[in-house]
Amino acid sequence: MTIVEAGQALRRREITCVELTRRCLERIEEDNPKLNAFVTVTATQALERAAALDSELATGRDRGPLHGIPIAHKDLIRTRGVRTTCGSLLFADDPMDVHAAVAERLENAGAVMVGKTGLHELAYGVTSTNPHFGAVRNPHDPRCIPGGSSGGSGVAVSTGMALGATGTDTGGSIRIPASFCGITGLKPTYGLVSTYGIQPLGLTLDHAGPMAQTVADVALMLDAVAGFDARDPASVNRPRTSHAPRQLDFRVLRIGMPRNFYFDVIAPETQAAILDAAQRMASLGAKIVSVGLPDMEALNTVARTILLAEATAVYRRRMARRDLFGDDVFALLEQGLLITGPDYVDAQRLRLPLCREFRAVFDKVDFLFAPATPMSAPRIGQSEVELGGRRMDTRLATTRTMRAINVTGLPAMSLPCPVPKGALPIGLQIVGKALDEARLLSFAAAVEDAFSF
Amino acid sequence: MTIVEAGQALRRREITCVELTRRCLERIEEDNPKLNAFVTVTATQALERAAALDSELATGRDRGPLHGIPIAHKDLIRTRGVRTTCGSLLFADDPMDVHAAVAERLENAGAVMVGKTGLHELAYGVTSTNPHFGAVRNPHDPRCIPGGSSGGSGVAVSTGMALGATGTDTGGSIRIPASFCGITGLKPTYGLVSTYGIQPLGLTLDHAGPMAQTVADVALMLDAVAGFDARDPASVNRPRTSHAPRQLDFRVLRIGMPRNFYFDVIAPETQAAILDAAQRMASLGAKIVSVGLPDMEALNTVARTILLAEATAVYRRRMARRDLFGDDVFALLEQGLLITGPDYVDAQRLRLPLCREFRAVFDKVDFLFAPATPMSAPRIGQSEVELGGRRMDTRLATTRTMRAINVTGLPAMSLPCPVPKGALPIGLQIVGKALDEARLLSFAAAVEDAFSF
Repeated sequence: MTIVEAGQALRRREITCVELTRRCLERIEEDNPKLNAFVTVTATQALERAAALDSELATGRDRGPLHGIPIAHKDLIRTRGVRTTCGSLLFADDPMDVHAAVAERLENAGAVMVGKTGLHELAYGVTSTNPHFGAVRNPHDPRCIPGGSSGGSGVAVSTGMALGATGTDTGGSIRIPASFCGITGLKPTYGLVSTYGIQPLGLTLDHAGPMAQTVADVALMLDAVAGFDARDPASVNRPRTSHAPRQLDFRVLRIGMPRNFYFDVIAPETQAAILDAAQRMASLGAKIVSVGLPDMEALNTVARTILLAEATAVYRRRMARRDLFGDDVFALLEQGLLITGPDYVDAQRLRLPLCREFRAVFDKVDFLFAPATPMSAPRIGQSEVELGGRRMDTRLATTRTMRAINVTGLPAMSLPCPVPKGALPIGLQIVGKALDEARLLSFAAAVEDAFSF
Repeated sequence: MTIVEAGQALRRREITCVELTRRCLERIEEDNPKLNAFVTVTATQALERAAALDSELATGRDRGPLHGIPIAHKDLIRTRGVRTTCGSLLFADDPMDVHAAVAERLENAGAVMVGKTGLHELAYGVTSTNPHFGAVRNPHDPRCIPGGSSGGSGVAVSTGMALGATGTDTGGSIRIPASFCGITGLKPTYGLVSTYGIQPLGLTLDHAGPMAQTVADVALMLDAVAGFDARDPASVNRPRTSHAPRQLDFRVLRIGMPRNFYFDVIAPETQAAILDAAQRMASLGAKIVSVGLPDMEALNTVARTILLAEATAVYRRRMARRDLFGDDVFALLEQGLLITGPDYVDAQRLRLPLCREFRAVFDKVDFLFAPATPMSAPRIGQSEVELGGRRMDTRLATTRTMRAINVTGLPAMSLPCPVPKGALPIGLQIVGKALDEARLLSFAAAVEDAFSF
């Protein structure tokens, strides 16, 4: 059941908020022991809150499309009264008194939190297995990773443990698990969704966004969480707008297919799926335009330099407690100590013209198609993948199509492509113009439609 | 003669562009050997251009208030066909093919460039004496410094070698020479005036702005140079507006007098001048409000960390040529190598809440009064000053009231206070709200009026 369907059923009185929540909790009870999607399940609170929301509906108070909808929060997002681990041992004393902006806004919109989902250590770990909380498993094949760092959120939505979930994306952490788990995830424009109350990782790269089963569901969640928040210094101050998908005129749409980078290192079935998506849109009238992108390796190097320095700035005072960190996160934090101030400044300087060049692509096209991840989910513990006859580090392969987009701050989605029954999901990445989420979601809804035939 | 007066005389045909330019060139010829304000004088080009502008006027083409006005550019601002030294030996091979946005815009507005003015080495030197081009001298007392780094521009305007000049301000470099030379200088809001074509120093701190004899002249120059420029990544994209001073209602104006920091280390006559300024405005009906500012020492530390790393990012590839740098600049560049990436990121993180706190002061007041420099111009070569019984490094004393404002990006002016005949100038600093230059200049014009009685 999608958020849209659940909302209809609720309002037709075919189901109650409590029943919706109970269904999700049952799914959690059944599947979570196998998949480890949740760090914390808040069953009692969720049922109480669902009952209260049922009473509200009964008395005519309807908070809108998310009223009574069971959702989950990535456990990097602080929640008042419920601990937030960040997938780490550092926050064992979490005072549980901060409520992140996205948690607050979803709560006000009537969502019911069923729990906090598992993630890579500090949303930064290299290995898919969290050293403190174990591996989250992919529901399509429990031997595979769900992708990260918002892996638990991907699994929760994919299995119906929650109808929607929040994620964060500093270098792909929403889009990667969306791709590997076969759901829809949106990294909105930098600054559109407040990161207040979310444990930071990369000061100028952090994004928060929704993950759900469909584009329409993602749009409903975005409506709830987008908007100015003075507590987030990066927050964009502009009037709130609706992101409900609208009809687009395909005859004037131009879809950019990158000539360079994105199809250099890619699994054949992923490449075929992206080309098939373009084909479907072309047959609806959209114009496919081959576009050259700026030096994407340079953008990825910029991303790496910036993230290493920014993440180490967050944690270096804690590094004396070596025992509280997993090996891979600690190694990254040590690498961050090697980035000099001028290195970082140079990366930020280089970022400006590269981003300008990247954004200029959107003078020629409306949207960009690319693979989300260059391949389907690899196995847990698999350190290398083979792509086009080349062996490659799994994490590098997974993030290479992602990080540049965080540097640009542009909105990007991962959308599940049609795959043969039993095959692992493949994600199509659609990149849009800055703050143009309404059109991006409208377009994504049309792609989703085209995929369903 | 001010820019406004020259414009009136031109249009009354009491003077020609050529005569105006010749007067400035004569002043340069007479005073520059003593004061060393100019690195390059472009006499021939200036006279040719002035003649062409006279022809334009004769045929009815009037470019507006700057038509035929002799101006000078700080020699950090690139000019096509005229070398730009940046006060350094690094640019001996300046290809002279870039025209900075401010040079281009002033040229289009009809200004006549008479030359390029002297500055601290790379706008960064500690000592007032440029190791390659010698000391620029203060016209009020040639044994004193004019302040920097836009010292030559300050002297040129103060002596009538030019009616207006450009400056740049990364840590006070417009406001300090305005204060020491007794002229009016504006550091506009970060991003309001394009820095395209200006040799960078601090990526997130650099500002360009006008220096002139009066507020009205500064406003005319700002009208010409302000406005969006896609070539400057920091450029603010909003419609151009007029900055002509308007009448303000003093009965609703609130002037903030800082309780902390600005009057802690200050010469008695400077303190008296600032308090007198407040008194004059109070007698016109303005309300004087005592305000607490955020931790200004923290803001200055943030400024220092950011500037050290940003400046070294610009020059580190040139540092192998030790012989091309003066000792003090090289020492600063070496200090920049000691700033780590996480240090710099932390400074930028700390910057955000500090700036928010500083800007919040403007919820309570319309403008802030502070000393520009805490004392009048010190002697050339004077390494320490005594302020309130405390000995202090001259450069630290000169910049301590400046740098925090560069961190906030807020617009700030230095305005000459009334001083006894023969005394060195004292500058009043007025800080305004972001992008509120029109009001700031209107207010400054009223203060200037109040000073003239």
